[in-house]
Amino acid sequence: MLNAEQSFEERVRASFDQQRLMTAIGARMTKVTPGEVVIELPFRSDLTQQHGFVHAGVITAIVDSACGYAALSLMPADSGVLTVEYKANFISPARGSKFIATGRVVKSGRTLTVCAGEVVAAEDGKETVVATMLATMMRLLEKGSSSNKSD
Amino acid sequence: MLNAEQSFEERVRASFDQQRLMTAIGARMTKVTPGEVVIELPFRSDLTQQHGFVHAGVITAIVDSACGYAALSLMPADSGVLTVEYKANFISPARGSKFIATGRVVKSGRTLTVCAGEVVAAEDGKETVVATMLATMMRLLEKGSSSNKSD
Amino acid sequence: MLNAEQSFEERVRASFDQQRLMTAIGARMTKVTPGEVVIELPFRSDLTQQHGFVHAGVITAIVDSACGYAALSLMPADSGVLTVEYKANFISPARGSKFIATGRVVKSGRTLTVCAGEVVAAEDGKETVVATMLATMMRLLEKGSSSNKSD
Amino acid sequence: MLNAEQSFEERVRASFDQQRLMTAIGARMTKVTPGEVVIELPFRSDLTQQHGFVHAGVITAIVDSACGYAALSLMPADSGVLTVEYKANFISPARGSKFIATGRVVKSGRTLTVCAGEVVAAEDGKETVVATMLATMMRLLEKGSSSNKSD
Repeated sequence: MLNAEQSFEERVRASFDQQRLMTAIGARMTKVTPGEVVIELPFRSDLTQQHGFVHAGVITAIVDSACGYAALSLMPADSGVLTVEYKANFISPARGSKFIATGRVVKSGRTLTVCAGEVVAAEDGKETVVATMLATMMRLLEKGSSSNKSD
Repeated sequence: MLNAEQSFEERVRASFDQQRLMTAIGARMTKVTPGEVVIELPFRSDLTQQHGFVHAGVITAIVDSACGYAALSLMPADSGVLTVEYKANFISPARGSKFIATGRVVKSGRTLTVCAGEVVAAEDGKETVVATMLATMMRLLEKGSSSNKSD
Repeated sequence: MLNAEQSFEERVRASFDQQRLMTAIGARMTKVTPGEVVIELPFRSDLTQQHGFVHAGVITAIVDSACGYAALSLMPADSGVLTVEYKANFISPARGSKFIATGRVVKSGRTLTVCAGEVVAAEDGKETVVATMLATMMRLLEKGSSSNKSD
Repeated sequence: MLNAEQSFEERVRASFDQQRLMTAIGARMTKVTPGEVVIELPFRSDLTQQHGFVHAGVITAIVDSACGYAALSLMPADSGVLTVEYKANFISPARGSKFIATGRVVKSGRTLTVCAGEVVAAEDGKETVVATMLATMMRLLEKGSSSNKSD
């Protein structure tokens, strides 16, 4: 039998496993706690932009997923999550052997959740912040939910 | 001999061809005019999120590149371009057979360029706007430029 | 008897008149059509920042209100509107005798509305774009509404 | 004789005192440290929107100024500061007797500085976060500077 915590982690991990993009780029979910999720991505040269750094869109993809799942981790069990919008600043070149994206819930509302995200690049034991994000996520009622009449 | 217009289009296309992510996801640059660039991406199931739509990060990647190259198209020939930041709203699910990202320069400054981007999904001859972006790009002086002393 | 169009314009103008900040800074709503609202602000030296231009917060206030009321203009009659978030780029100094903020609905959803805003500065018959905004507005059910149970 | 720290605080306070909007709305700068600035605003009913809360534009104005001056506090003495862009999420109604805006530098670059801002509402000894901001500031060389040739 599952306790409530296992249940939320399993929901988040099951949804992440369905994000085929995360598999395609080699990203792994390395931490799931209530309100905070970490996704790691090893460097791969096919993910780069014209200067050889990881493309801003890839950095955005992992921190978007981290924020979305941080939001989902605090939602009722019958919920899905959708990205409404985000803003990201790219503050250092995405250079490193590994990129670690953390998403944290800033405010969890009934319909909307605001999250803050950060991506650090790790290289030779040193970490550098490469991007920071502010995002708005929306709760969806998944198909088959018995409570979706009011949505 | 090249005229000035060919030269800017060639610079933009050469830089785009170095974005290995664009090749990896199957994106093509289909239009380059001064201040406006279009990038197209056919649907591929390995680029999806948990509901089977194209991941917000991928949609962001193509419209970021479109905005960045729209900015570069108006910069002096010795310039490179860097994404400072962007904000995107996702206004419909990214469902369709093809995604068309357009980046346009709103204001071209000496150091910073502001761009507006839009992504439409095409399916069965119908187009739906799926995302809208507002982005800030920065001019970089490429290595080897003789004019980078004052930057 | 009112027709539907008068009704939406009256709702928008009545709400605007309750925004005491707009009165305090001298802003007027000069246009209300379904999905587009214009607010104008004459220059006043007590609204400036350290260089003598109108403060970014004031420019933001008028275009936020223009966007919010553009959103409200398309909502059911029992609705209120709330700013979820916005992003603004300041592309020229806010210098001029009058500032004209236009808010337009980009996508009107059941709960959320995405708007684009722009502020131009007018001086000596010449207009310059000073700011551009991308905003997310949320529908609220006003107190006393009979349909607020499902929200 | 001034030491370096007094000098930066004096520069920041002198510029803030020139922001006539801050005086007009009753805002005070209550803390200036290298990379962090706090601005406080007592509630005033002429600063409200249609529900009686402080207008998002006013909340934005104080946290924009806090972020801008946090950025300026780390810049060379001959610098001015300009808001390039910001994004703000409004996460609770701006209800309270006092609003406290904090701006902090996330990354200080040669030309651009990225700042994070937050506004809390204080009432009866309780504080609630009402808004969070992510902003990009730009260094300007002030008139009369001897080093403005290369900018």
